[in-house]
Amino acid sequence: MSGAKKRLLSGMQPSGNGRLHLGNYEGALKPWVQLQDQYEMYCFIADWHAFTTLAGTDVSIADQSRQVALDYLSAGLDPEKCAIFRQSDVPQHAELAILLGMLTPVSWLERVPTYKEKREHLENYEGGGEVGASYGLLGYPVLQAADILIYRAHAVPVGKDQAAHLELSRAIARRFNFLYNTEYFPEPDAVISEVTGVLPGLDADENGKLRKMSKSYHNAIYLSDTPDQVAERLKNAFTTPSKIRKTDAGIPEGCAVCLLRKLYDPAEYNVQWEECRNGTRGCVQSKRETTEVINTFLEPLRTKRAEYENDPAELDRILARAAEKARATAEETLRGVRQIMKIV
Amino acid sequence: MSGAKKRLLSGMQPSGNGRLHLGNYEGALKPWVQLQDQYEMYCFIADWHAFTTLAGTDVSIADQSRQVALDYLSAGLDPEKCAIFRQSDVPQHAELAILLGMLTPVSWLERVPTYKEKREHLENYEGGGEVGASYGLLGYPVLQAADILIYRAHAVPVGKDQAAHLELSRAIARRFNFLYNTEYFPEPDAVISEVTGVLPGLDADENGKLRKMSKSYHNAIYLSDTPDQVAERLKNAFTTPSKIRKTDAGIPEGCAVCLLRKLYDPAEYNVQWEECRNGTRGCVQSKRETTEVINTFLEPLRTKRAEYENDPAELDRILARAAEKARATAEETLRGVRQIMKIV
Repeated sequence: MSGAKKRLLSGMQPSGNGRLHLGNYEGALKPWVQLQDQYEMYCFIADWHAFTTLAGTDVSIADQSRQVALDYLSAGLDPEKCAIFRQSDVPQHAELAILLGMLTPVSWLERVPTYKEKREHLENYEGGGEVGASYGLLGYPVLQAADILIYRAHAVPVGKDQAAHLELSRAIARRFNFLYNTEYFPEPDAVISEVTGVLPGLDADENGKLRKMSKSYHNAIYLSDTPDQVAERLKNAFTTPSKIRKTDAGIPEGCAVCLLRKLYDPAEYNVQWEECRNGTRGCVQSKRETTEVINTFLEPLRTKRAEYENDPAELDRILARAAEKARATAEETLRGVRQIMKIV
Repeated sequence: MSGAKKRLLSGMQPSGNGRLHLGNYEGALKPWVQLQDQYEMYCFIADWHAFTTLAGTDVSIADQSRQVALDYLSAGLDPEKCAIFRQSDVPQHAELAILLGMLTPVSWLERVPTYKEKREHLENYEGGGEVGASYGLLGYPVLQAADILIYRAHAVPVGKDQAAHLELSRAIARRFNFLYNTEYFPEPDAVISEVTGVLPGLDADENGKLRKMSKSYHNAIYLSDTPDQVAERLKNAFTTPSKIRKTDAGIPEGCAVCLLRKLYDPAEYNVQWEECRNGTRGCVQSKRETTEVINTFLEPLRTKRAEYENDPAELDRILARAAEKARATAEETLRGVRQIMKIV
């Protein structure tokens, strides 16, 4: 039955702290969960990619990858519907990356804006003039193309900042097809999901403007946070700076707490916003109530997470079974590639 | 027993015509044969590397790789002493290349002189301004480092033009060891064999100076040549330009035929050289005799080659058995790498 469905590939990179936050949930996990019935879905943990930033650190990618798997599962990705696996468990990704690298012009990679920024940053700010960007960082889009094309995926859910990378994956697929006069690789289509907008983080920039929720800004609420951690983070969250006393007027549109309340309590946020605006409700109350709203939202995710945390052997089985499925599909693709390229 | 020996890795890339010539024999195969008793030897056919120049062509790398295997065997590499296998049969090379790429600075690769030359050539002469060098070409030394380090090889036989690449492999091993505070990878040592000097090819440049024997100059005698092909090639070989008649004086030191005679008939070449020099022997005779000398030298190689050509199943078994051994060693190395990098 799943053979009749189109294939979709999604994935995320474990990072230094390996956990996903509400912004990741809204922007990626939630749409993925909605897609898992529609597609034959492969959802991987991009642990090799993590080395573009973590090479040489003593971060345990293994631990971080498990956290990402727990995030996936707690968010509702269903291991019966969707293969959840680690990239490093499917060495076929590497073999295809080596082969695609042979036909990807360096000039395409050097032009990728995120690479140019990161390279500059590394050369200027981290004493890395001598070392700078790695070959792997430059080749990020090649490995990404391999991640997608190894499943001959038709679709990839993308956020808008990943659009350029998918464009390169499409270009690499086209180049392979052109050079070998074949239609072997479908050009993967971007699936852009209706997202509620960028989720605000809990702080603001120097101009008092909210920033997006991001690991690197340390302004995030994590899916794995305990109720107390959520309360603590909300307590320190950015509100209307001029609202010192309860009776001062607030501006809910510019307040992290009010915006989160709206998102996670769409039916009843109005009263809070109104009272904030006209100075009949203080930030302390707003924070307390928003904490409750978010904790209510996170509760089922926590329950599911705990289930798997308490049964690590089951998590191992899920990852192993999915990796086996992924390897089988990937090996099938590689067999075709080896023939087309006349390696066998 | 082999466990007590140090490991040595050698290999060659199949090219567009996939066959090795006398220059390859003298510079590489012959020294390799001498090393196979001394080391635990892994001798691979670098078929992935071939795509740095052959991507998108319809050359059958599979066929070319078989020819290289036949060349190895006919030159005397003994499958009982030395694992002869295709790179593409050991996907662990690719996985290690991906990981090493994460810690290899792009700047190291951009500085490699052969890369700079090739990139320039591609951009200027092949209408490749738009496409130019591939990511794989830039990363050649990374894949090469993986080829060596995946066996934790102690030694690599090198010609002098490969010295820079081995230097990079050593640097990459050092960088891994440094970043992960380990001595996991030995820095591979170059084994520079006593070579008879560069083997002259059969032609000369525009200044009448002999060029080295090289596939790309079309001036080579191939190990797989038939006796008639050798005769034909010698017939058209460069001799002393001013020696038109037998009685004209020749300059053996500048004559391809005389130099080959010396190399393959060290006991008796003097007479020929003397008579060439004083105009008592013509080029026709010299060519005929040198043809015989070379054919005598090639005869045992041809016999061995024919043996395997007539038993393709045996060749398959040799390659398969060696690949299995190589994969076992390579997988053992990778297990250590994955632990050190905390992927597992």
